[in-house]
Amino acid sequence: MIPPRLSLVSIGARDIASLKTFYQRLGWETRSTADDFAAFPLGGAVLALYALDALAGEVNLPAPTGEGFKGFTCAINVEHEEMVDAAIEAATEAGARVLAEPVTREWGGRSAYFADPEGNVWEVAWLPNAEFDARGGLIWPF
Amino acid sequence: MIPPRLSLVSIGARDIASLKTFYQRLGWETRSTADDFAAFPLGGAVLALYALDALAGEVNLPAPTGEGFKGFTCAINVEHEEMVDAAIEAATEAGARVLAEPVTREWGGRSAYFADPEGNVWEVAWLPNAEFDARGGLIWPF
Repeated sequence: MIPPRLSLVSIGARDIASLKTFYQRLGWETRSTADDFAAFPLGGAVLALYALDALAGEVNLPAPTGEGFKGFTCAINVEHEEMVDAAIEAATEAGARVLAEPVTREWGGRSAYFADPEGNVWEVAWLPNAEFDARGGLIWPF
Repeated sequence: MIPPRLSLVSIGARDIASLKTFYQRLGWETRSTADDFAAFPLGGAVLALYALDALAGEVNLPAPTGEGFKGFTCAINVEHEEMVDAAIEAATEAGARVLAEPVTREWGGRSAYFADPEGNVWEVAWLPNAEFDARGGLIWPF
């Protein structure tokens, strides 16, 4: 039995101190800080930063060597369409690289993408009819 | 202002139909299925599968070409230590490749890792003192 949960995302960090600083500059609060680990409780899930070599060691696979797109994105969903644009502005001020400016998507929402200093990609998204629980967890509307 | 949220994780899929089948074999319920998209509401966050080329196109970056570790993991957190072992057994039956058998970690919990058919890595983790909200969202204990 595998509970249907996405509890936490661990990102392997090449320079955990500076990556932690970036996420703190987004206004996010760090918990459980150690030299090789930081956790950011983010609504119904947790973002963990963990030293890349340590993470690769735990999963028994070589650490990736490239700097390119890793093939996954994390999303910050917001309540109102205009919050997408505001969040992208704030991310830019915090040092993010904007990959895609906010646009209205064919599925009816609005979204944009930015990258953190190590190339991890975040989407800021507004979905029509999305609701959120008390902790900010997304209630999937479709 | 950037809300502290990790609402959704999008994994870029090379073969979305077979990857969707794998996650359904874990017992997870699919929503919003289209040919190039599937969504699995997982507690306080959502797992989305999206065609890799389409995802890369949205973020304006080349799709990764390698098959190796992507440098991130997602975690399924469970309430009891023995549920880690049970989940890894169930994942194996569903076709997962076990990367690390369950072990007690130096931080006091127990965890193990498996990979989906496209090499996306999941941890099954038990944290001492972790609690969960009504939807299964992790309440970070540290």
